[in-house]
Amino acid sequence: MNTSDQSPILDRRGLAKNRIEALADGIFAVAMTLLVLDIKSPENRAFETSADLIDHLVRLEHSFAMYAISFVVLAIFWIAHHFLFHFIRHVDRRLLWINMGFLLLVTFVPFSTDLVGDHGHFTLPLFVYGVNLLALGALLTVQLRYMAGRPELSTPDLTPAAVAHMRREIGIYALIPLASMAVSLFYPRVGMYCYLLLAIPAFVSSRIDRHFHPAARGAAGAHPEEP
Amino acid sequence: MNTSDQSPILDRRGLAKNRIEALADGIFAVAMTLLVLDIKSPENRAFETSADLIDHLVRLEHSFAMYAISFVVLAIFWIAHHFLFHFIRHVDRRLLWINMGFLLLVTFVPFSTDLVGDHGHFTLPLFVYGVNLLALGALLTVQLRYMAGRPELSTPDLTPAAVAHMRREIGIYALIPLASMAVSLFYPRVGMYCYLLLAIPAFVSSRIDRHFHPAARGAAGAHPEEP
Amino acid sequence: MNTSDQSPILDRRGLAKNRIEALADGIFAVAMTLLVLDIKSPENRAFETSADLIDHLVRLEHSFAMYAISFVVLAIFWIAHHFLFHFIRHVDRRLLWINMGFLLLVTFVPFSTDLVGDHGHFTLPLFVYGVNLLALGALLTVQLRYMAGRPELSTPDLTPAAVAHMRREIGIYALIPLASMAVSLFYPRVGMYCYLLLAIPAFVSSRIDRHFHPAARGAAGAHPEEP
Amino acid sequence: MNTSDQSPILDRRGLAKNRIEALADGIFAVAMTLLVLDIKSPENRAFETSADLIDHLVRLEHSFAMYAISFVVLAIFWIAHHFLFHFIRHVDRRLLWINMGFLLLVTFVPFSTDLVGDHGHFTLPLFVYGVNLLALGALLTVQLRYMAGRPELSTPDLTPAAVAHMRREIGIYALIPLASMAVSLFYPRVGMYCYLLLAIPAFVSSRIDRHFHPAARGAAGAHPEEP
Repeated sequence: MNTSDQSPILDRRGLAKNRIEALADGIFAVAMTLLVLDIKSPENRAFETSADLIDHLVRLEHSFAMYAISFVVLAIFWIAHHFLFHFIRHVDRRLLWINMGFLLLVTFVPFSTDLVGDHGHFTLPLFVYGVNLLALGALLTVQLRYMAGRPELSTPDLTPAAVAHMRREIGIYALIPLASMAVSLFYPRVGMYCYLLLAIPAFVSSRIDRHFHPAARGAAGAHPEEP
Repeated sequence: MNTSDQSPILDRRGLAKNRIEALADGIFAVAMTLLVLDIKSPENRAFETSADLIDHLVRLEHSFAMYAISFVVLAIFWIAHHFLFHFIRHVDRRLLWINMGFLLLVTFVPFSTDLVGDHGHFTLPLFVYGVNLLALGALLTVQLRYMAGRPELSTPDLTPAAVAHMRREIGIYALIPLASMAVSLFYPRVGMYCYLLLAIPAFVSSRIDRHFHPAARGAAGAHPEEP
Repeated sequence: MNTSDQSPILDRRGLAKNRIEALADGIFAVAMTLLVLDIKSPENRAFETSADLIDHLVRLEHSFAMYAISFVVLAIFWIAHHFLFHFIRHVDRRLLWINMGFLLLVTFVPFSTDLVGDHGHFTLPLFVYGVNLLALGALLTVQLRYMAGRPELSTPDLTPAAVAHMRREIGIYALIPLASMAVSLFYPRVGMYCYLLLAIPAFVSSRIDRHFHPAARGAAGAHPEEP
Repeated sequence: MNTSDQSPILDRRGLAKNRIEALADGIFAVAMTLLVLDIKSPENRAFETSADLIDHLVRLEHSFAMYAISFVVLAIFWIAHHFLFHFIRHVDRRLLWINMGFLLLVTFVPFSTDLVGDHGHFTLPLFVYGVNLLALGALLTVQLRYMAGRPELSTPDLTPAAVAHMRREIGIYALIPLASMAVSLFYPRVGMYCYLLLAIPAFVSSRIDRHFHPAARGAAGAHPEEP
């Protein structure tokens, strides 16, 4: 009778994480797809020659670049969110609200992207964009800290080492908006292209990855699994 | 023979709740992401100085405020919907239609938000917005009552106490649109900012929360967890 | 060894239905939320008095009506799709393509809705809309017939009686577009409001419902539930 | 001791694939639904006669065709993605980034579709569209190759034969954009309609299908099904 407490049926009684994951995935999906709408297709103009059309598209260069940059930025935050939720077993009201703040900032990214794409020769748009990304990183850190302090909500995998690895990774990403904002004070357009540096930490495997690899389970669990 | 009725295989034969959850999450995600599109980015204007751009953005103040307010409003209703569905085991046609009415009102929020953001110096938009939110709350109450009367659709966790807690919480949220509409008869803009009061009930843990906490399973399940 | 073929682990090897369900839910969610964008909010106009604004909104009457009608129409087809997929165990390529045709028609609904909302004083838009809905119903029938002929893809619940009940229900829905198109030859606007008749079959429980009710499992599963 | 590593509980420790599936389904759903928005509904015009309206819609012929073609193209890539993920057990960072590149190209499809719909009398739009589709196919091949080299991420079903069948199918699809681009050098509009050839490989069952059919489990699971 007591063992049945461990059964999956009772375990479901904690508030499940699948719906906030679904909402987050939906919001990320819409935001990532809307980015391309910011590139104004020359639909209302009839071009006389193919060269005119090419000319028009070339002038949209900054919009294309910001579309790709913001897609990668959202992809980075989505992956970080995915990694974080890997360690969650249950959610509570506060964790939901931390996520809602995070998602509010995600929905703001298409707006700040558009601002940089259209007015990126000024410094202000790059500061709006940079602060948007820093705030996203800050909320991930808040969530990580909240989870680390509540073992009943997280899986046993969330060891202090895993927390430290994730904090370090979020910290590295914060350096790029800071660099971009500093540069944009003098050269706004160069500040915008600073975000291409995101490619360095994003694609490189870091220490946190071995927590997710099935072959690394021994390292994460530090003990053989059913002796 | 009787115990096999409790088996997960037979249990699946009732209409599963996961798809209406997925549809609701999708509609909330789209509505929450579209809110930012209501802020008209000054894309077709070339600003001569950075001050002109700042000036333009400052004049969008009400649109920014309504975007944040409506995001929080939708987040509140999403969380309430999440809490309600935690107690559902199966759905039937009527429960699906109650949810469809609820979701129709969710898709109307971007429209009523836009109306307040653009014409919030009149009383009418604030009444449209307030009635929209009251109707959302009313449909949640209808759903709660429907579930309470059909034990075959809900989990045993849905005790009369849980129902009472949820009804009280929905009731508290209804006070804010009512206050906003009353104030907007005299000062429309002040009526709009009444919605900032939503922060008070939204972030505070209420009694209903302990129904979802894994540590509170004892209370719901009537027997201790780890002796 | 043979019985292990029934085991959930091996059973997963067939192509799972959850992803086409997720795609369908996503497309329905986006289409249902985009409907409200067809109502042109008077954002670029500054109204001098509240009466001017009311006047403007009243003139959007047909757009509001079509938004609500199309939401209900999409809800009906979503519920029918949900009912149909309740009986599916695995999908194959052809079933995926039948669904893709169905979803293509779903994405066309916002366009045909807009056409009726803006130009509903002509007959043509009502024919486009009516044919759109008839084609949606036709594809559901094709899918039902396909499933009925492939027991390896469907659950044992899909009895000939269940198939007959679902075919009859889809047939009843087809009567309303036919009526609307006939009426619109003479009075287009009346043809549009014919769709309000959808409320009659949509909200009424039909025979098919007892296949989904957990209490009706006895009928489907061939043994009584609580003796 | 070793066999316990195969247990479902331990198996969950690898990074689950369900969230990247959900993100992909969301992005596909939004992109597929946005396609219809590229058809400019004549909302701001009042047509005097029904013939004027018909005339206007007929002139949108290329936009309607591109909407249907791109929906089918996205459906093909979604099905291919679905087939590929059928064989995945766990994901890692690199697999996530391969998918992000794939999804970036998916979000670009509404833009390139619009370009062909509006300016398809030039060669350039058809090259942009063709390269977009070739890049999508290339990333699927990269993903397939990555999975084939990492048995710890994929299911045992991913036999060399399955890999070969999928590579061949992706290759066949690549022929159509190549043909379209070649033809568009001389006749852009004919190049556009080359995509109707997609119907041939898309709807025909290929060898890969028997890997997904529950009746083909014998081949995958090494023992006959119905003795």
